[in-house]
Amino acid sequence: MDKINEAISSIKPLDEKAMAEARMRQDNLTKPQGSLGQLESLSIQVAGIKGNPRPRIVHKVIFTLAGDHGVTKEGVSAYPSEVTPQMVYNFIRGGAGINVLAHHVGARVVVADLGVASKMEKYPDLIDKKVAMGTQNMAQEPAMSREQAIRSIEAGIELVEDELLKGMDILGTGDMGIGNTTSSSAIAAALTGADVVTVTGRGTGLDDEGQRRKVKVIQKALGINQPNPKDAIDVLSKVGGFEIGGIAGVILAGAKYQIPVVIDGFISGAAALIATSLSPQVKPYLIASHQSVEPGHKIILEHLGLKPLLNLDLRLGEGTGAALGIFLVEASLKILDEMTTFAEAGVSEKND
Amino acid sequence: MDKINEAISSIKPLDEKAMAEARMRQDNLTKPQGSLGQLESLSIQVAGIKGNPRPRIVHKVIFTLAGDHGVTKEGVSAYPSEVTPQMVYNFIRGGAGINVLAHHVGARVVVADLGVASKMEKYPDLIDKKVAMGTQNMAQEPAMSREQAIRSIEAGIELVEDELLKGMDILGTGDMGIGNTTSSSAIAAALTGADVVTVTGRGTGLDDEGQRRKVKVIQKALGINQPNPKDAIDVLSKVGGFEIGGIAGVILAGAKYQIPVVIDGFISGAAALIATSLSPQVKPYLIASHQSVEPGHKIILEHLGLKPLLNLDLRLGEGTGAALGIFLVEASLKILDEMTTFAEAGVSEKND
Repeated sequence: MDKINEAISSIKPLDEKAMAEARMRQDNLTKPQGSLGQLESLSIQVAGIKGNPRPRIVHKVIFTLAGDHGVTKEGVSAYPSEVTPQMVYNFIRGGAGINVLAHHVGARVVVADLGVASKMEKYPDLIDKKVAMGTQNMAQEPAMSREQAIRSIEAGIELVEDELLKGMDILGTGDMGIGNTTSSSAIAAALTGADVVTVTGRGTGLDDEGQRRKVKVIQKALGINQPNPKDAIDVLSKVGGFEIGGIAGVILAGAKYQIPVVIDGFISGAAALIATSLSPQVKPYLIASHQSVEPGHKIILEHLGLKPLLNLDLRLGEGTGAALGIFLVEASLKILDEMTTFAEAGVSEKND
Repeated sequence: MDKINEAISSIKPLDEKAMAEARMRQDNLTKPQGSLGQLESLSIQVAGIKGNPRPRIVHKVIFTLAGDHGVTKEGVSAYPSEVTPQMVYNFIRGGAGINVLAHHVGARVVVADLGVASKMEKYPDLIDKKVAMGTQNMAQEPAMSREQAIRSIEAGIELVEDELLKGMDILGTGDMGIGNTTSSSAIAAALTGADVVTVTGRGTGLDDEGQRRKVKVIQKALGINQPNPKDAIDVLSKVGGFEIGGIAGVILAGAKYQIPVVIDGFISGAAALIATSLSPQVKPYLIASHQSVEPGHKIILEHLGLKPLLNLDLRLGEGTGAALGIFLVEASLKILDEMTTFAEAGVSEKND
């Protein structure tokens, strides 16, 4: 727990002076004030995160964390659990959605096994942070022990720290884990207080009957385990997942090291709930890349007070939405840094 | 009018076979079917436009067309008309928002004077297609003659044709013209039948009083000129602008040459209304990049049946939203072309 407490205690508020300077520069660029909307506010947020009124980003990293879920035994997913390791190998070979989009935006992908329920082959690009061979079935017992929950968050912090020396100006979060929308819905219900029905969707493609079953399984898991909403680590241990704990750790570390954290969809949103529940100071470091199709995601974003940048009906995960979000953050910083001012360009300002 | 009629008569429906092949490939890529939402449908649309089941885009062009508006005499804009030529020079020097975002997405910007009310200095990168020294004041008389309206559309077609040899796999539209939200609101009211109040916004930054004045000016212009909603060229000539006619021509030419047309915000939307009114066959070639802050834009997009890709509270114009949209189209095509299939990756498919 030391590593988590140390991260939490070192998170600072955003730099107000850098934000004021960035705001002033935005207001003097050759465009009507405010006319680039969220691109302007994004650039000011990042200026505050980095303590730099004209920040640039060069090194972009997406953390795609994988883990399996014992609750898949209850028939809550349209795909079998064996897809989790198969997709991890697909990430390593570069054939998945996240590889394509990360390459498109110039980001590197860090793939880590937080708890895949298979013995994984060794690859130089596959980071082994396995906490256990998948979680237990939360419909029967806690998904993991409290120690394992802490370990998964600490593993996420370590992932970021191990990458820092290679350069990291912005990070995105991503997930892979068959069954993890079930876990994320349970976390969302526990930490936002929302009804299970409102935060449960079709995941990778359940039919109506499957979705009804999923709701019942989540209700059963919450009933049996009674996660304490005031204790995010208790919630993670009772109904969470190792990759979700890992993403929460990545988010905490991002805030600790003043790195803008672009969160992906529903699973990353559940991890953000855990991270912000551990420390509300994390919130200003978060950028919501998109609004997922999963109904619980909207509830999570509203709870966190975040406005998503994109709404493209995505529901893939892996960090795919985060990759697109990173591109928009970079666009916002280029606007701030590269546009000329009214004075430089000799353009007339607004009539009084 | 020959050039316009020739363009209209050569627009073909999208290639159904290419779309079916692209759909089949999307469904076999290593992701749940449909999980990349609009990125999937975009890629299929572009496959149909290009008649190629796995299209790629290399050459990206944004057309930023400028023109002035006599109606600014009525006090309908927060900025003086002199800003139009000043911003054109800013485009040429590379200091404006569109330059920054076009560079970010790897697009070249084609800047053309369709009707700026100043004698412009000569620059190799400034294309002279001036129809007149700005429009007349539409609150007093028609903005332009019918011949001038036709000429502005033909100039837009020529702009695309002159660029084809340099390579153009996708195009975006953009505008610059103080007063052109007033003209666009008038066009939107005339061609969609919406009430003037519902399609009139603050433009570059009017206060409440300015906005009320703008509504009255548009109502007066429509009352005096009585544009015929069944005749888009009549509407353009009565209440339009030279850059708006030019953008309508760019759109027609895009459809003629099977080039995906990414439309920017409100002004480009008004031009799209004119182009689709001239030929409904244009519609499937259109991609709406974003939802502008201007209230009339939503009404235009609904009228055209287009769902915007982004909603970032942009209202700058110039093609800035189109640049971001081009990036998303490119992302969608890379997904289609670069991801591996389930069979290639050895990933299990959905449970039955």
